[in-house]
Amino acid sequence: MNIIVKKFGGTSVGDVDRIKKVARRVKKSQAEGHAVVVVVSARAGVTNSLIERAKAIQKNPADRELDVLMTCGEQETIALLCMALDAIGVEAVSRTGWQAGIITEGLHAKSRIREVSGGDIRKQLKAGKVVVVAGFQGVNDHGDLTTFGRGGSDLSAIALAGALRAKGCQIFTDVEGVFTADPRIVPKATKIEAINYEEMLELASSGSKVMQTRAVEFAQKHNIPFEVRSTFSTKPGTSVKKKVKSLEDTLVSGVAIDKNQVRVSITELPDRPGAAAAIFKVMAESGVIVDMIVQNVARNGKANLTFTVPSEDAFRAEKALKEHFADGASGKLGKSTNIAKVSVVGVGMRSHSGVASAFFEALANAGINMLMISTSEIKISVAVSPDQGDEATRVAHVAFGLGK
Amino acid sequence: MNIIVKKFGGTSVGDVDRIKKVARRVKKSQAEGHAVVVVVSARAGVTNSLIERAKAIQKNPADRELDVLMTCGEQETIALLCMALDAIGVEAVSRTGWQAGIITEGLHAKSRIREVSGGDIRKQLKAGKVVVVAGFQGVNDHGDLTTFGRGGSDLSAIALAGALRAKGCQIFTDVEGVFTADPRIVPKATKIEAINYEEMLELASSGSKVMQTRAVEFAQKHNIPFEVRSTFSTKPGTSVKKKVKSLEDTLVSGVAIDKNQVRVSITELPDRPGAAAAIFKVMAESGVIVDMIVQNVARNGKANLTFTVPSEDAFRAEKALKEHFADGASGKLGKSTNIAKVSVVGVGMRSHSGVASAFFEALANAGINMLMISTSEIKISVAVSPDQGDEATRVAHVAFGLGK
Repeated sequence: MNIIVKKFGGTSVGDVDRIKKVARRVKKSQAEGHAVVVVVSARAGVTNSLIERAKAIQKNPADRELDVLMTCGEQETIALLCMALDAIGVEAVSRTGWQAGIITEGLHAKSRIREVSGGDIRKQLKAGKVVVVAGFQGVNDHGDLTTFGRGGSDLSAIALAGALRAKGCQIFTDVEGVFTADPRIVPKATKIEAINYEEMLELASSGSKVMQTRAVEFAQKHNIPFEVRSTFSTKPGTSVKKKVKSLEDTLVSGVAIDKNQVRVSITELPDRPGAAAAIFKVMAESGVIVDMIVQNVARNGKANLTFTVPSEDAFRAEKALKEHFADGASGKLGKSTNIAKVSVVGVGMRSHSGVASAFFEALANAGINMLMISTSEIKISVAVSPDQGDEATRVAHVAFGLGK
Repeated sequence: MNIIVKKFGGTSVGDVDRIKKVARRVKKSQAEGHAVVVVVSARAGVTNSLIERAKAIQKNPADRELDVLMTCGEQETIALLCMALDAIGVEAVSRTGWQAGIITEGLHAKSRIREVSGGDIRKQLKAGKVVVVAGFQGVNDHGDLTTFGRGGSDLSAIALAGALRAKGCQIFTDVEGVFTADPRIVPKATKIEAINYEEMLELASSGSKVMQTRAVEFAQKHNIPFEVRSTFSTKPGTSVKKKVKSLEDTLVSGVAIDKNQVRVSITELPDRPGAAAAIFKVMAESGVIVDMIVQNVARNGKANLTFTVPSEDAFRAEKALKEHFADGASGKLGKSTNIAKVSVVGVGMRSHSGVASAFFEALANAGINMLMISTSEIKISVAVSPDQGDEATRVAHVAFGLGK
């Protein structure tokens, strides 16, 4: 069977007309010989209005019951899409997360997928039916309904594609694929035809908002190739897979920018083992995700430690650190500042030196000062002043010969 | 364990404030030493808006997917009520129909309960938790979500009470119980303290809108006593059970009126076996429920057949009959007219003669003409002109010494 899994997000199924449009698209794919599994999210806005209603009853609703409430969102969509398919003569059958055998473990509201059986989906496909599955949700060993958190429907689609040994998995979004840079910032940016999991992961975690990292990590771990493409066009998108044939000289695949970061500085940190570790323990306990970290060489037994956190976590991070120092820990909290993080990503840089120097030189020529630098095997990130972020992105894009 | 099952309908959980009110009521019952299971419907209006959305996509949505859609309604309520309970310090856990082990059979949208396991409800109750169960829904052997049709949450509550061997089952509604007649028509009507299943069934099917007959039939079949009482007061309601101790001379328990009936007449029907049966086969195939049936003695080989159908089925009934006669069947469709059906109900009439004559005499004295008569073992119904229905109800209420 030529199984294909297609995932449509909340905007793509946002209203009756869009649901009908998705149905026509699914019909066309079936007519082309595919056995189609569709994974859908809750209609845009539904999840938020459910949460609002919950908060009107209790400010901090228990996650278990919040999951029971939230799973209604996708359950509504699967029924509506099946009706839309039926209306245009396509036999379809819906499956909630538990009916599709999506077994989860871990905490409510951020469950992990432990196992996907697929239930009787293959049987239904063999009978010529389209199967419409509720994304974002599963069931745990206690029979409780669970959800995956942000980006959860992408995860459902990729996991199902793996379990069903699908020939393809298509993630439909409101962009045409993964670009060499954000086209709103770099007009010459072009769509990347193919990219490997690692690059996709680094781009996702560096500010490219196309997909959440969780789904990509799952795809990488289980080697499930997928394609990111647009709901609103028929053009091919970006293939994400294990190995991408590329020209020898493709050092950098894309440039990403994340404007949503705040730099936190700590001065007068004692230069002894454990001092920095204590800081990051405080951050972890406060649920703050730390991104770039730089520690300077110590002078006079004191070091400076600088790191970035997502803007929405900045207040929480500062509060926790103030308490930490108030409790007697040595060190001094500096003033936090907004920064933009610009990253160049590419597996090519593994075997090539000179990427960092080319990047830094291009920035220097443009008069852009680097506030922080951090590197991974296939990524180089620099923090720059927020008003220079866009320019830094354009400069990098040109420096590595990307785009048109 | 002193288990009590409480069922709250859509109006009782219609908004955030009412859900909170139900939560307080449940808390009180638990404090009094009960192990409480709550069965809830979808919030008033939710089911209709889900159906509207479905119809915007497809005029006649498939029942399977309609069930998937509809079950979201109660699933939302169970989560919200658990949050409301948690907010006032009551540990609660929700269960959808399938989680509560409510197994169904038969058609979608009007499934029957085959079996109720209760899942782990007893275990949760033992742990001191309130269990909130989604009414109106279950799961069939194929793992499909199913619903029970109108009055389905009453059925869920009664079936759960039976399965859990509950000490009590309370059906909360917007009336204080079952009355000797509709108090809006008969101001002197009084609440009936206790009534047996058969009487309740006859009252329900004769126009008393307190409960749907299905739930009562289930209670009767499995001998599960229950109480009908008001959400908005703390007064005891009406107990419905197998045997009710009553004074010897209670011939009639109540008078019911159904204004929602249309009389269909067929003349010139051939007086031969099968002619009437063919008519009712046509009705059954059109899904029309026929109530009172009267066939006159034939003259000149032709008979007149008259029966009543619910108003909402009248158009469908006429259409089907017109086609039947157009296809060559003998007979002529007369003009349909609205009627009011007034019924006196009481198990006492089984062993007493004279109830019919007392009823008819009272109507005659009031100048009310009877258009049709039909009787069962414990009920006598007459069809009268719609403008005389209320008066006929009051006359019967007085004739049998009911009320204050």
